[in-house]
Amino acid sequence: MTTPPLTALSSTPRTRLRRYPQRGRTDRAELYDVLDTGLVCFVGAVVDGCPHVIPMAYGRVDDTLYLHGSTLNQALVAAKDGGELCVTVTHVDALVLANTLFHHSVNFRSAVVYGRARVVSDEAERLAAFRATAEQLVPGRAEELRPPSAKELSAVTVVALSLQEASVKVRDGGPFHEPAEDADIWAGVVPLLQTWGAPVPAPEVTQPLNAPDHVARLVRGPVQGRRS
Amino acid sequence: MTTPPLTALSSTPRTRLRRYPQRGRTDRAELYDVLDTGLVCFVGAVVDGCPHVIPMAYGRVDDTLYLHGSTLNQALVAAKDGGELCVTVTHVDALVLANTLFHHSVNFRSAVVYGRARVVSDEAERLAAFRATAEQLVPGRAEELRPPSAKELSAVTVVALSLQEASVKVRDGGPFHEPAEDADIWAGVVPLLQTWGAPVPAPEVTQPLNAPDHVARLVRGPVQGRRS
Repeated sequence: MTTPPLTALSSTPRTRLRRYPQRGRTDRAELYDVLDTGLVCFVGAVVDGCPHVIPMAYGRVDDTLYLHGSTLNQALVAAKDGGELCVTVTHVDALVLANTLFHHSVNFRSAVVYGRARVVSDEAERLAAFRATAEQLVPGRAEELRPPSAKELSAVTVVALSLQEASVKVRDGGPFHEPAEDADIWAGVVPLLQTWGAPVPAPEVTQPLNAPDHVARLVRGPVQGRRS
Repeated sequence: MTTPPLTALSSTPRTRLRRYPQRGRTDRAELYDVLDTGLVCFVGAVVDGCPHVIPMAYGRVDDTLYLHGSTLNQALVAAKDGGELCVTVTHVDALVLANTLFHHSVNFRSAVVYGRARVVSDEAERLAAFRATAEQLVPGRAEELRPPSAKELSAVTVVALSLQEASVKVRDGGPFHEPAEDADIWAGVVPLLQTWGAPVPAPEVTQPLNAPDHVARLVRGPVQGRRS
């Protein structure tokens, strides 16, 4: 946690974009933005020689991505055993309807991070990882609840993945227009919007009846881009 | 495409749920529901011994999931070379805020499909795969546009993945309640809603000005569960 901040996004054989390289972004701030506005990531690992992809919550602290989960979690077991991980966070922003079926697409912002994860054993860092993950879901909530107990944490594997080797790819704008096509075909973009619904208290909650400020702030804000 | 429909979801070493097995679903209709209401899937492959996870559009026809993409797409290249794929589709339905940080969670519906994909070379099936993917994004649109030409299709790899080996996991309901905790902590669920925004015509579209019926129908309907 004392390493200097990383600079521009690396280009490695794994992160080099084969298709539409002009959609790649090299500014590290764009990586942070994609990660910080997501809710779940897709963690890929190799398990018994085969790919394995599961959704997980996550948290970011500087240039480290934290994942935690059950000690039975196969991706985390693979990471503990020294296997590489590939973590992908994707926002779908719109459908892109072209005037040919072939050019239909999706506007998206996607980040991919590769690397071997470090198993986190230091208790302070394990707690920080836990808080970062809660913060990712609901900013401000971790401050108001007691931290996980030693017993709770003992059931959990925590790993840290450096953001050293990462790529960001963004598609935005309108559809590719095929000029040879009939002129009367509607083409355009249909935005996909995410919002929070009204909070539903658990049946055990009798006092206070109103959701706390951090929940009210969450619900008022946009889902995507809520930190940007 | 002449094989009989599959029945209940298989349980294999890969699809067996290690954690919260009671959240597993065995009804194949629930697999179809998760897949048919999604927009993108996360495709995992092993590339040079390392995991590789990318978002892709997809389409379903009966018990076959179709993926298509550039001939440079690394996951499709791995599939062509006989490598296993793992395809995951996940809907995040709500944040689950417990009265302890430890029990915070997310309500979700997630499907995972494993297997070796078959490269599709038959032209009719390649077209059907293309149409199914367009249909997944915007029901009804594929009927109104010309199919991809032979030249367009020649740039694309199409693969078919059987839904034989698949699992579905669902978390719903409220948070786990820790009775020993302070009684004044708000806990509950915050639903995540997805809606379509108003369609934005491409600058080249001058006639007709209004989006066609299939786009209007899309925008009126819910994003998730729009076929259920």
